[in-house]
Amino acid sequence: MKKAIFRRHGAPTEVIELVDEPDPQPGPKEVRVRTRFMTINPADLLSIEGRYGAEPMDLPATPGVGAYGIVDAVGPEVTRLAVGDAVLPVGGGFWADTLILHERMAPKAPVGADPQQAALMRANPGTAWLLLTDMVALSEGDWIVQNAANSNVGRMVIRFARERGIRTVNVVRRDDVVGALKDDGADAVIVSDGGDELAQSVREAAGAPPKLALDAIGGASTGALAAAVADRGTVVTYGLLSGEDHRVAARDMVFRDVRLRGFWLFDWYRTATPEKMRDLHTFLEDKLAAGVLHTEIDAAYPLDRIHDALSHAARGGRNGKIMLTGDKDA
Amino acid sequence: MKKAIFRRHGAPTEVIELVDEPDPQPGPKEVRVRTRFMTINPADLLSIEGRYGAEPMDLPATPGVGAYGIVDAVGPEVTRLAVGDAVLPVGGGFWADTLILHERMAPKAPVGADPQQAALMRANPGTAWLLLTDMVALSEGDWIVQNAANSNVGRMVIRFARERGIRTVNVVRRDDVVGALKDDGADAVIVSDGGDELAQSVREAAGAPPKLALDAIGGASTGALAAAVADRGTVVTYGLLSGEDHRVAARDMVFRDVRLRGFWLFDWYRTATPEKMRDLHTFLEDKLAAGVLHTEIDAAYPLDRIHDALSHAARGGRNGKIMLTGDKDA
Repeated sequence: MKKAIFRRHGAPTEVIELVDEPDPQPGPKEVRVRTRFMTINPADLLSIEGRYGAEPMDLPATPGVGAYGIVDAVGPEVTRLAVGDAVLPVGGGFWADTLILHERMAPKAPVGADPQQAALMRANPGTAWLLLTDMVALSEGDWIVQNAANSNVGRMVIRFARERGIRTVNVVRRDDVVGALKDDGADAVIVSDGGDELAQSVREAAGAPPKLALDAIGGASTGALAAAVADRGTVVTYGLLSGEDHRVAARDMVFRDVRLRGFWLFDWYRTATPEKMRDLHTFLEDKLAAGVLHTEIDAAYPLDRIHDALSHAARGGRNGKIMLTGDKDA
Repeated sequence: MKKAIFRRHGAPTEVIELVDEPDPQPGPKEVRVRTRFMTINPADLLSIEGRYGAEPMDLPATPGVGAYGIVDAVGPEVTRLAVGDAVLPVGGGFWADTLILHERMAPKAPVGADPQQAALMRANPGTAWLLLTDMVALSEGDWIVQNAANSNVGRMVIRFARERGIRTVNVVRRDDVVGALKDDGADAVIVSDGGDELAQSVREAAGAPPKLALDAIGGASTGALAAAVADRGTVVTYGLLSGEDHRVAARDMVFRDVRLRGFWLFDWYRTATPEKMRDLHTFLEDKLAAGVLHTEIDAAYPLDRIHDALSHAARGGRNGKIMLTGDKDA
């Protein structure tokens, strides 16, 4: 089997290497999964660079948190899975053509789902749904604002918000994505590089001061959203695209009682009740089946060409996700 | 009558002037109050400098949010107050020897209270109490951390926390105040200029990661407290001593879900229910009577010497509050 590892933090194309290992056998309650598609997310790249997570990682490590695969061997005492089942693994370390997983960590993929779309189902759409429903109480007609609105999470936020009657102001950097966001259901799109005028533009574009802001960038962008939200509004940071510390006007915090917090899907999974997880997965499966989760895919590279995939993923101006394909026994 | 005004924002000793006005008469439901003592708080100085409050102020303006005075005239339809009553005005614009107040804005002072201590009763002790009780749920044995712990608010926080069995780590800049804070009931005192080591020092000093941090400074100090609190802990900023924007590691926000918010007593009064206000005032009156609210007073200056008072208030190394005295008909 082959898997990607990094032995030290650094630029992904420099530190990622492919290693060959003996084909592993599943132990009790474990299954062996041959991956078909694996996702490359911004969080994977940040992890490799050492800029992600609450604690230092144990190295060497294998990135990857989204995958679709087929069970090709089952260990003793496995009761819920059989050879041939399609699964969406839970956890991480998925940039490999073969995974050994406890059967609890290998929930079945929705029947009939497109494998690439299914691999993408949990991380970004799950984050989008929880950002909209688990942070502050929103009612139909309420406004929210988000930056990096052209990201996969951002696009899902727009679609889910529209379904719930929540109105969105969407901040992007490129003119050429405005149409796609409007097609998704964006109520307003602002093209801005995040300068001082952003808060004012947001307030003018929104029909009412936003109660919630979703921040994927950090740095001064967090402060711009804090200045844009309503008194007692909330800014939730779920991404770190700038790699910079939050900079927020104390005035907005003290006198307008703006609240700042963060969201990290990994931590959500660590603390959510089984009921909440089931609700989330049911929601996502329904949406996947309804085609609402469709994500554009710019290219898929076999694991052997992972450096090409990483170079592509790091480029701006993409029009979709970059995927990896597992080709073991394919 | 005389009152202090500023016509433009700037250094307090440069822009504050005293003006004479005809002695005013109370209208319907109004009383005239001759002030005896008025407080000078950091928030007053920041207001004069134009660094306080959510909105630009209408100028000219009169500072001052804490006072003790005696009713010397009542208008028609006044039912709750009589000439000779001692009152603690609510609102602002109190740096004057004479105030005209709606009787609702002039609650009686606690019977037998020391006038200077009574004038100081609401702003700082009220803030301290609400910071401890109205932000996050704290139980006996929980730890909190605060900076600027030698401030009047900080000293009250220590005393109120001790009464409730809540443990405090207190950050100060000067060695010579450690003893006084320990006498107040501080569990730990750290002398620090707020450098990178502060979060680690706090965590070592506290018996458990603090659930709540109280921040009177802003800037990098907010970030140091954010790094020091427990996962999912809260940092409440209630003062702006640094005048700087918050700078907080995105990592603490996203991966540890630290929450940031603000507290402003003025806003609390604007939104609190009458029951909550009555509870607060009853608590403060009880504590004043019990001597718990005692605040050191470094000097009191007549309103005529307001520039001397402001110079003194701006100096570091004081050992107590600076007060103003109203001398009209005294």
